[in-house]
Amino acid sequence: MPTAKDPAKTAGPAIILVEPQLGENIGMVARAMANFGLSELRLVNPRDGWPSEKARAAASRADHVIDATKVFDDLASAVADLNFVFATTARERDGFKPVRGPVEAGRALRAHDQAGLRTGVLFGRERFGLYNDEVGLADEIVTFPVDPSFSSLNIAQAVLLMSYEWMKSGLAEETATNFSGPELVPATKDQLHSLFTYLEGALEARGYFRPEEKKPKMVDNLRAVLTRAGFAEPELKVLRGIISSLDRFSPAMPRGDGSPGDDPRRLPAARKRAADKES
Amino acid sequence: MPTAKDPAKTAGPAIILVEPQLGENIGMVARAMANFGLSELRLVNPRDGWPSEKARAAASRADHVIDATKVFDDLASAVADLNFVFATTARERDGFKPVRGPVEAGRALRAHDQAGLRTGVLFGRERFGLYNDEVGLADEIVTFPVDPSFSSLNIAQAVLLMSYEWMKSGLAEETATNFSGPELVPATKDQLHSLFTYLEGALEARGYFRPEEKKPKMVDNLRAVLTRAGFAEPELKVLRGIISSLDRFSPAMPRGDGSPGDDPRRLPAARKRAADKES
Repeated sequence: MPTAKDPAKTAGPAIILVEPQLGENIGMVARAMANFGLSELRLVNPRDGWPSEKARAAASRADHVIDATKVFDDLASAVADLNFVFATTARERDGFKPVRGPVEAGRALRAHDQAGLRTGVLFGRERFGLYNDEVGLADEIVTFPVDPSFSSLNIAQAVLLMSYEWMKSGLAEETATNFSGPELVPATKDQLHSLFTYLEGALEARGYFRPEEKKPKMVDNLRAVLTRAGFAEPELKVLRGIISSLDRFSPAMPRGDGSPGDDPRRLPAARKRAADKES
Repeated sequence: MPTAKDPAKTAGPAIILVEPQLGENIGMVARAMANFGLSELRLVNPRDGWPSEKARAAASRADHVIDATKVFDDLASAVADLNFVFATTARERDGFKPVRGPVEAGRALRAHDQAGLRTGVLFGRERFGLYNDEVGLADEIVTFPVDPSFSSLNIAQAVLLMSYEWMKSGLAEETATNFSGPELVPATKDQLHSLFTYLEGALEARGYFRPEEKKPKMVDNLRAVLTRAGFAEPELKVLRGIISSLDRFSPAMPRGDGSPGDDPRRLPAARKRAADKES
């Protein structure tokens, strides 16, 4: 039996479909499970029998789930080896069973799983879900926060959401992603001010700051716009390259045509310093 | 424009499908959206044209989404009126865009929406997603925490997860559900002890507590078992009814056959008190 000390080897919850009708749906369930690391599918009396080529086709290469699928004659047999079972239902039931949302259910399954318990989640028929006596075989109920005015999750969608919450419950942080964007921390003020100096010099040389008495306000505004964005160092490099290109070349004398701006050795000293800083 | 003061009237994010191929998928997208309260679907160059009877059939009565769907010739036009756009992608991209998980993205969409901004989420083609220049039209990237060894969410599944996280971001509590189980708070000790008294009396009358010196330990165990379950008052009533039936009737003289136990007026005084307490 898996233990909390060996969480990587826990199987995760079994997904149990009660009298599913369409092979396509079973396949989509397998695909949904595989996306979120679940692999144990159980079927109670599938209407069109098993195995099902339609299921395999719809599973989109989740063959390991399809191959390992087990079929049972009744629900009690399908849950016989499990310690804790959720029943999914879209409608309220009478009775003593606690009702959870999927986030809470995902966390409960994870906790039971890590304690070495075998868990499962029941999903009912496409048309009308689970009978009350089938819900009665579960420990607790899970229901999804759908729009009450349009509640029409199909079985594969319900399995997808539950599998997704299972996966999320195992993430170190809820906001973890498989890959990350760049670490874009704002550059130092020194790096930002260096861009200001270069840009303002290039603009000054073109007579941008006119009339002269408006220059302080114009500089203020320019710096405010470039400060609020919180640019990171690599972004400042991109901006510097853009400004440098605008400053040094023109449509009539583009880079690479042998014009003076093309060769830093031919630049005036002030511009040469700026050009040297580019990578 | 919707404002934070009137959140009920905000539209929520537009779902934008870029060159979707199959009408069935568009329909499943509409169904997924409707389940979680989204209604604004935009299509960029759907391969098989629009309107699509296959889409309507697959939408499973989400006709309000299908009827309001807008078609655009290019992605830039489809996002032209939006203030903030996420691009969904399963693979890492070069560039400066922040990458979010779906929970964080749902919260960001909700915050922008409540601030009166129009938002959208881009989903790519079934086969290969979004081109880099299409991702470039978005502000940030959202990616789903799928199993890296089986990453195969289809477009409707991706829309379902994003719509679900949108709905969740608007719940007062993450664990909110559309309906609740009963409020099963543990009964008072007085109610529990009353059951003990009745049960132990019924057992004593049958000679259950033998040998006599073991009685204290047997009572301890019986009370421990019935205490640990934390039964609520209505559950205690069910148990009392069960015990009472076992106590007062037998297969040979079941309730309703005119046997002495059938009529409280004919019971000995001690049993009559117990019977009076049943409802």
